[in-house]
Amino acid sequence: MISVAIMGVGRMGSIHARNIATNPRLRLKYVVDQNGDAARQLAHELAAVPATMAQVLGDSDIKGVFVTSSTSTHLDLTLACLRAGKAVFCEKPLDLDLAKIQVSATELSAATSSLFVAFNRRFDPHFQKLKARIAAGDIGTLESLHIVNHDPAPAAHAFIPTSGGLFKDFTIHDFDMARWLLDEKITQVFAWASCLIDPVVAELGDFDTAKLVLRCESGKLCMISNNRRSGYGYDQRIEAFGSKGAARVDNVFKSAVSVWGKDGMLADQFPFAFMHRYADAYRAEVDHFADVLTGVTLPATGYQASVDSLILAEAAATSAKTGAPVNL
Amino acid sequence: MISVAIMGVGRMGSIHARNIATNPRLRLKYVVDQNGDAARQLAHELAAVPATMAQVLGDSDIKGVFVTSSTSTHLDLTLACLRAGKAVFCEKPLDLDLAKIQVSATELSAATSSLFVAFNRRFDPHFQKLKARIAAGDIGTLESLHIVNHDPAPAAHAFIPTSGGLFKDFTIHDFDMARWLLDEKITQVFAWASCLIDPVVAELGDFDTAKLVLRCESGKLCMISNNRRSGYGYDQRIEAFGSKGAARVDNVFKSAVSVWGKDGMLADQFPFAFMHRYADAYRAEVDHFADVLTGVTLPATGYQASVDSLILAEAAATSAKTGAPVNL
Amino acid sequence: MISVAIMGVGRMGSIHARNIATNPRLRLKYVVDQNGDAARQLAHELAAVPATMAQVLGDSDIKGVFVTSSTSTHLDLTLACLRAGKAVFCEKPLDLDLAKIQVSATELSAATSSLFVAFNRRFDPHFQKLKARIAAGDIGTLESLHIVNHDPAPAAHAFIPTSGGLFKDFTIHDFDMARWLLDEKITQVFAWASCLIDPVVAELGDFDTAKLVLRCESGKLCMISNNRRSGYGYDQRIEAFGSKGAARVDNVFKSAVSVWGKDGMLADQFPFAFMHRYADAYRAEVDHFADVLTGVTLPATGYQASVDSLILAEAAATSAKTGAPVNL
Amino acid sequence: MISVAIMGVGRMGSIHARNIATNPRLRLKYVVDQNGDAARQLAHELAAVPATMAQVLGDSDIKGVFVTSSTSTHLDLTLACLRAGKAVFCEKPLDLDLAKIQVSATELSAATSSLFVAFNRRFDPHFQKLKARIAAGDIGTLESLHIVNHDPAPAAHAFIPTSGGLFKDFTIHDFDMARWLLDEKITQVFAWASCLIDPVVAELGDFDTAKLVLRCESGKLCMISNNRRSGYGYDQRIEAFGSKGAARVDNVFKSAVSVWGKDGMLADQFPFAFMHRYADAYRAEVDHFADVLTGVTLPATGYQASVDSLILAEAAATSAKTGAPVNL
Repeated sequence: MISVAIMGVGRMGSIHARNIATNPRLRLKYVVDQNGDAARQLAHELAAVPATMAQVLGDSDIKGVFVTSSTSTHLDLTLACLRAGKAVFCEKPLDLDLAKIQVSATELSAATSSLFVAFNRRFDPHFQKLKARIAAGDIGTLESLHIVNHDPAPAAHAFIPTSGGLFKDFTIHDFDMARWLLDEKITQVFAWASCLIDPVVAELGDFDTAKLVLRCESGKLCMISNNRRSGYGYDQRIEAFGSKGAARVDNVFKSAVSVWGKDGMLADQFPFAFMHRYADAYRAEVDHFADVLTGVTLPATGYQASVDSLILAEAAATSAKTGAPVNL
Repeated sequence: MISVAIMGVGRMGSIHARNIATNPRLRLKYVVDQNGDAARQLAHELAAVPATMAQVLGDSDIKGVFVTSSTSTHLDLTLACLRAGKAVFCEKPLDLDLAKIQVSATELSAATSSLFVAFNRRFDPHFQKLKARIAAGDIGTLESLHIVNHDPAPAAHAFIPTSGGLFKDFTIHDFDMARWLLDEKITQVFAWASCLIDPVVAELGDFDTAKLVLRCESGKLCMISNNRRSGYGYDQRIEAFGSKGAARVDNVFKSAVSVWGKDGMLADQFPFAFMHRYADAYRAEVDHFADVLTGVTLPATGYQASVDSLILAEAAATSAKTGAPVNL
Repeated sequence: MISVAIMGVGRMGSIHARNIATNPRLRLKYVVDQNGDAARQLAHELAAVPATMAQVLGDSDIKGVFVTSSTSTHLDLTLACLRAGKAVFCEKPLDLDLAKIQVSATELSAATSSLFVAFNRRFDPHFQKLKARIAAGDIGTLESLHIVNHDPAPAAHAFIPTSGGLFKDFTIHDFDMARWLLDEKITQVFAWASCLIDPVVAELGDFDTAKLVLRCESGKLCMISNNRRSGYGYDQRIEAFGSKGAARVDNVFKSAVSVWGKDGMLADQFPFAFMHRYADAYRAEVDHFADVLTGVTLPATGYQASVDSLILAEAAATSAKTGAPVNL
Repeated sequence: MISVAIMGVGRMGSIHARNIATNPRLRLKYVVDQNGDAARQLAHELAAVPATMAQVLGDSDIKGVFVTSSTSTHLDLTLACLRAGKAVFCEKPLDLDLAKIQVSATELSAATSSLFVAFNRRFDPHFQKLKARIAAGDIGTLESLHIVNHDPAPAAHAFIPTSGGLFKDFTIHDFDMARWLLDEKITQVFAWASCLIDPVVAELGDFDTAKLVLRCESGKLCMISNNRRSGYGYDQRIEAFGSKGAARVDNVFKSAVSVWGKDGMLADQFPFAFMHRYADAYRAEVDHFADVLTGVTLPATGYQASVDSLILAEAAATSAKTGAPVNL
């Protein structure tokens, strides 16, 4: 078993910590958190030890560190861990500020074998099967994509100013999916965004509804739909259209139960939150990091994927502001 | 255009009359009904002439007659028309009394080219496609069938004593489907039936819920489920299991619309009544009769199919009464 | 029965003529076509009379005329019929040239009770139910729409130069759906279009793949996807997202049959062509015209709907050319 | 953490052992198996200790024992563990021989708080939701059930003579589901069974295809379909029909991916094996046993459920042999 530590055990950190605890190849040795009680409690639950960052960096037994603290600390902690010779599982994003990341471009891009920035959707078994079907030629040559990414309910107002805005916080997943599936450089971005759900979001300078179109040099196109409050659960769909046909990932239902009554057939709900819809993906990305730590594979996504997605997010923000497409 | 007449324009007769009126090969010349007003009104609507049975039988221009009067008159009218040299489209069943039919066995079975007893489900495009898939070998060798036939809401109490009972009135369709799809003699019938919906049905000596198993000499099996009040519409499904896989006809929805809300995904209703679910089949069977009249084909179902289904229905009634399987 | 005539019995004209023939309120009296043989043959089949335009216009028995000739003749024939006091069912579009239509703006816009320009999708029972669900408040306030409109297989090259281009020929339906469902003025149009299917289409100055975004003053948004060759049938879907949930019209399958085998569950195909997918809509629009002729209702769509859709199509063409959104 | 041991680590034992290892409340201390290598290997993988039965029974730290050895040893091991004061998780069935179980009836039926016989389907989240919907009155009063239980591919010939036959080995799950959902004593059993798949099965005195009907005193009915080789995966469905509507558990697909091509829409496969379809149920039943060990709940199923199902299985075998229903 390989010893790892985790830094930051808020909502996402706890999910990852529990997945580490049940991964047969990893041993969670240390839990670090500003909030000492949180660290102690989770460490106790998972048979780990609450620790400081210095302890983690100084323990040569620790091969990998999960950086799952608040977004603004990701970059510094990641760099500190890399410098201490640890492989890093950094919860996405590396940072919300592209310029700040690029300051450390040389150092970060050199870490191809030790820096994994976790874009969870690449590890979703449904999207992986979609990718495999496209790769197998089942739909011929891929020509366009439709991505629907709708949140069940709006985020708290307090979160918005620190979120980076809709495109960096939320659409960022769709940009990464688009790049992964299109497998070609995206050269133009167009975005229209509105505040239809909550006027406070507009006052805070953000959007709650957006439709985007991405374009590649070859003319391939991708449509993205975002919405911060669907009213019906977490809507996560991708359709891929090709020269021979199409493939899609439909929503996953909470169960295979339906009830037939006088008003029609009521299928079950969609999962209400990302931690349920992507539970398998979160487990799989921890396992991917175990592969990275054992030298089985290189990280699927690191510095470059982070930068690429952020560039698209910044372009989208500019397009939504100016009302014109942005060329990359 | 071939001139035809219709005898009996109640609920089923009206459906057929309107389908004749829109069939490009048929001309509805006469409408006959005990109820003169009903005959006059429908004749007026469809540019036909109200007439007596004698007029119909005496007009050599009339090549075919639709016998769609009340069940107890089917057999006599059919025989009269056949003797007058007319082809007959007889709404199922020929009669509820097997013995009564068998009295005219020689005459009826000789009419292979002119007597069509309309078992509508054989003309349903969904069931026809199922039959075609089985015939094409898509599921290998057929081994067993599941038929679900649930009515949306119970029939009127007044109808029950004249209906022939659940098995002759309702399951009769399933027996015909089983014979058509199994394509092998059914040698044993088992039925358990209950009154779970309405105690008056029991007082009238009938059942409202039944589960049957049919068995062929080769061991092939067929399960049938009947219910007089589904609560959710007209449930019409068939599944066929074979050596390589399975094929099914699922329910047809009223529309392709679904609504996604906090309780889940609400698909539309199933059709509430046979005239909607089988509208295409009713049109197709009128067209089949046009084929028969023009010599393009022999009737798909006539005396033999009627007798075969009735024998199964009587066996089921016996089984439900005695609690033991019946050998045929 | 109300007497009507039809002018032009090519592919669309024949569909309408047959639907007139089976409509209980309409009598097809005259068939007019440049191609005398085509007119004679269809007239014979449907018990009508081949005629000249002059005969039609001069017969006071004729209350309505179906203008289903080639697109370039729609406007002149429509005007001639209106001037002769006939109500007109004009197959969409009135004309491909907005300026040409606007020359007769006064005359055409005055014909609110007698000019029906047939936008078939408004009569599709699925889309009508979607509209009804939105109107009933089932999804709260409508916020955005997704329309997928993919053709099964590309049009003939010869058709392209006279088609008006992708936006006027094909997307025009989606523009009308967007206006009908959004029920609010669309103020901005953005379109990216590519030639991914057939380079000849590009040489002819047209596109075969397009993604559009429409925007209303309130910020409501609509995405449209077009494709001239899906590879899997005629893909016709609309999703509506609102403040309480969503509603969608999914594709209609050719049948309710599926086959379960070792590779998965194969549901049936989607309809391969518009005349099958929209067969009910074509019948319903003929019936709507019977309502118009009997004074039961005003035409659902006429001059204004034609102009509105054309304006959106021209804006889309401009946007696709310049790469910038167009303000209306 | 509560210390437990496992006896028998073949296919089912390994599944349970791994679920124990990831259960946060249980600690797998000992692994016992006749095959010392198997015990050592799994113990090593899961940080447990290979041991003998005597060690397990003699260690007062051990509160619960998983009896997952071969079926013929279940009863003796279970009794030994109970006598040593251990709670027992016994993989179903307790024994194939009803008479043998009944010899220890007093002792076994007294162990209501310490004997859990694991009927996995009761822990499937889909079936649990079905049960909850019925309990909530969503379908009114339950009237009948349809259970489909088809295996993907036949068992090895060598397994058949020791399996107890189709009804005790396979249908046993359906009997338990029927009892659990009907929640009423089943008073009659009818079964027709065939060998349609493999004649060797017949030579070995068993069946590969069966259709059963169960009946309660109130007239409620249950149909069961069994098949040892579906050709399309592991078909696991239940439909419940009630006075207000119906509810069903449909098959679960391997993924939400479908491919649309010229032949139709190909949805993904059904899971091919029980360990995939019921992976969640296996985890949940281990967690249920942790509840039992901590006194949170009594075992959901023990002696009585085992006996009840076996009685139904024996009745079915008799019915299939005699061709007549069996009264209980």
